[in-house]
Amino acid sequence: MAAPAAEEALDGVLRTVAVGALQLEAGGALPEVELAYETWGKLNADASNAVLIQHALTGDTHVAQGSGAEPGWWDPLVGPGKPVDTDKYFVVSANILGGCYGSTGPASPDPEGRPWGSRFPFVTIRDSVRAEARLADRLGIRRWHAVLGGSMGGARALEWAATYPDRVRHCVVVAIGAYSTAEQIALAQAQVLAIRQDPNYRDGDYYDGPQPEAGLGLARRIAHISYRSEAELGFRFGRRGQGAENPFEAADGAASRGRYQVESYLDHQAEKLVGRFDANSYVILTEALMSHDVGRGRGGVQRALSSATAEFFLAAVNSDRLYFPEQSEELAKALPGEVPVHMIDAKIGHDGFLTEIGQLGPELRRRVFP
Amino acid sequence: MAAPAAEEALDGVLRTVAVGALQLEAGGALPEVELAYETWGKLNADASNAVLIQHALTGDTHVAQGSGAEPGWWDPLVGPGKPVDTDKYFVVSANILGGCYGSTGPASPDPEGRPWGSRFPFVTIRDSVRAEARLADRLGIRRWHAVLGGSMGGARALEWAATYPDRVRHCVVVAIGAYSTAEQIALAQAQVLAIRQDPNYRDGDYYDGPQPEAGLGLARRIAHISYRSEAELGFRFGRRGQGAENPFEAADGAASRGRYQVESYLDHQAEKLVGRFDANSYVILTEALMSHDVGRGRGGVQRALSSATAEFFLAAVNSDRLYFPEQSEELAKALPGEVPVHMIDAKIGHDGFLTEIGQLGPELRRRVFP
Repeated sequence: MAAPAAEEALDGVLRTVAVGALQLEAGGALPEVELAYETWGKLNADASNAVLIQHALTGDTHVAQGSGAEPGWWDPLVGPGKPVDTDKYFVVSANILGGCYGSTGPASPDPEGRPWGSRFPFVTIRDSVRAEARLADRLGIRRWHAVLGGSMGGARALEWAATYPDRVRHCVVVAIGAYSTAEQIALAQAQVLAIRQDPNYRDGDYYDGPQPEAGLGLARRIAHISYRSEAELGFRFGRRGQGAENPFEAADGAASRGRYQVESYLDHQAEKLVGRFDANSYVILTEALMSHDVGRGRGGVQRALSSATAEFFLAAVNSDRLYFPEQSEELAKALPGEVPVHMIDAKIGHDGFLTEIGQLGPELRRRVFP
Repeated sequence: MAAPAAEEALDGVLRTVAVGALQLEAGGALPEVELAYETWGKLNADASNAVLIQHALTGDTHVAQGSGAEPGWWDPLVGPGKPVDTDKYFVVSANILGGCYGSTGPASPDPEGRPWGSRFPFVTIRDSVRAEARLADRLGIRRWHAVLGGSMGGARALEWAATYPDRVRHCVVVAIGAYSTAEQIALAQAQVLAIRQDPNYRDGDYYDGPQPEAGLGLARRIAHISYRSEAELGFRFGRRGQGAENPFEAADGAASRGRYQVESYLDHQAEKLVGRFDANSYVILTEALMSHDVGRGRGGVQRALSSATAEFFLAAVNSDRLYFPEQSEELAKALPGEVPVHMIDAKIGHDGFLTEIGQLGPELRRRVFP
């Protein structure tokens, strides 16, 4: 069923909706929350074809290309004729609360018009999910046919199923477990510190001055290493020097030695993120991800999920060393019934949930999107 | 054979020897190099019982307790009656070139009496080994019965065997491979950047002002995570809060939330290192470790080791995710003859080369220290 041309033209176009004041799980409130979102396809008459796709830590709402030129980050999965067929399903993606891609976040104006900065409160994934539920209300979606996400997006999907059991028919959780582990918290702490220790950060009130680019860049480097497997880094870069740079070049100070290729690569990853992401959002969302624990305040993981009526579809990347497949297996065991963990076969590591997501297409068609 | 009382009293006591000017592998020179070292036991008449034990990145020369009260970092392995029996063997440990435990490093005075700081040159593990060879000369040691080391100490041991094949009878390399991999370089880069980006670092010329404690502390946190296994961190800390601290405490700014136990633990690791280690040495030695490649300039690893006449003893920690056992296996394959990799069984990760070194005792007695 093709959508009218006017609506098609809005496929993959960022819009914003106000969802009101939000009391926060950890205390405090945000007086006015806006959520940015994109949609693809058309909601059917009984609103039974809606699909929510949740982005990861530094992701955005542009899941699929839609009417514009910009590629989407899950293009192999979402679009006309794709496993999540936007000719059949109405796909929604919302920017997470605290983010910097349109939803209310630390760079947003407070009621007096100044950026929140250091005064932006601690938010959790559940807070975002509660805001997203209001977005669903606004869109006339009582129950999602499916909520999907990878990495932190998977945590958001899982929280949907636990918080609103009657609003999620299928829940697809890729490359994340039921809670952030000690190691994931530890790596997150290092990233947050990298930003906080940048003198330009000024406790988060930097919007009128230079940005904490060095700190955000370092945070990204630490994160990016964890997103890739040891084998991937070895295969791509080995011990080679970058171009004509020589890591052994005689230097007056060690600072002027040439770089290894892998250093140059990580410099590039850092630069790219610094050019597109707000450091405060990185801190806020990283701390939200540290808070990820679907069992928190619900008597543990198993009890939290015992009332979830969604059909779960779990997947992991076999080379992931940040969100180990074992953590997806542990989540599967905590779920009602027999839930298999589909394995994405990729050498790349965690980022396989982006680069190799197409591998899940056939199984998703079979089990979730017939 | 008991050593005279006067010599016994020097067991495990730090001494220093000048070894002259040193031309450096990457260019440049150090005009006057001193090496700090400790010894245990007594060199025998034909100097055939000398053993060199090499410390790791932030380690020191205090391998064994000796005559003082301070425990040694390989006490289970080294001492009277231990596998490396100091009643039979003369054990030497030298502080690495560029370090901060007595050997010439960036905090040492230059010929004009000012700390080297930013002007300290790029040094490699080979540079240190060449300086250590002069120490051996001074001590009257032509050939080591054995050179041992774990982690960066293992890299130093391996370089001894490749650089001075006729001076090493047994070479014991624990928990490191033939070269630093792309991932190890990447993690090292993040650590070096953490220090360089600390405004107190001032390119390394901070000795007359505040120390770059925050940067060094962050470097240590990043490193320490890599020294421990995911399972170890999960088992010890899980998602628990630290004492009465609550990671979900309502806060004016996110900065004031309580810490997770694992954050507090890493804070403690950072503080401990900051209290005992020089940031410039951390940078210099980390970059030296990045340079680790026994095959560099020698036609590759296999050719580099083809002329090594030492008997090799390799070991790895089965849960090590920084220096994977596979890298020790790869080194074994590059060595002449059949060299097994002895596996230390430990859940802790890389640091098992310290905490569980006693596991190697029986095999070391059998093969290296009869």
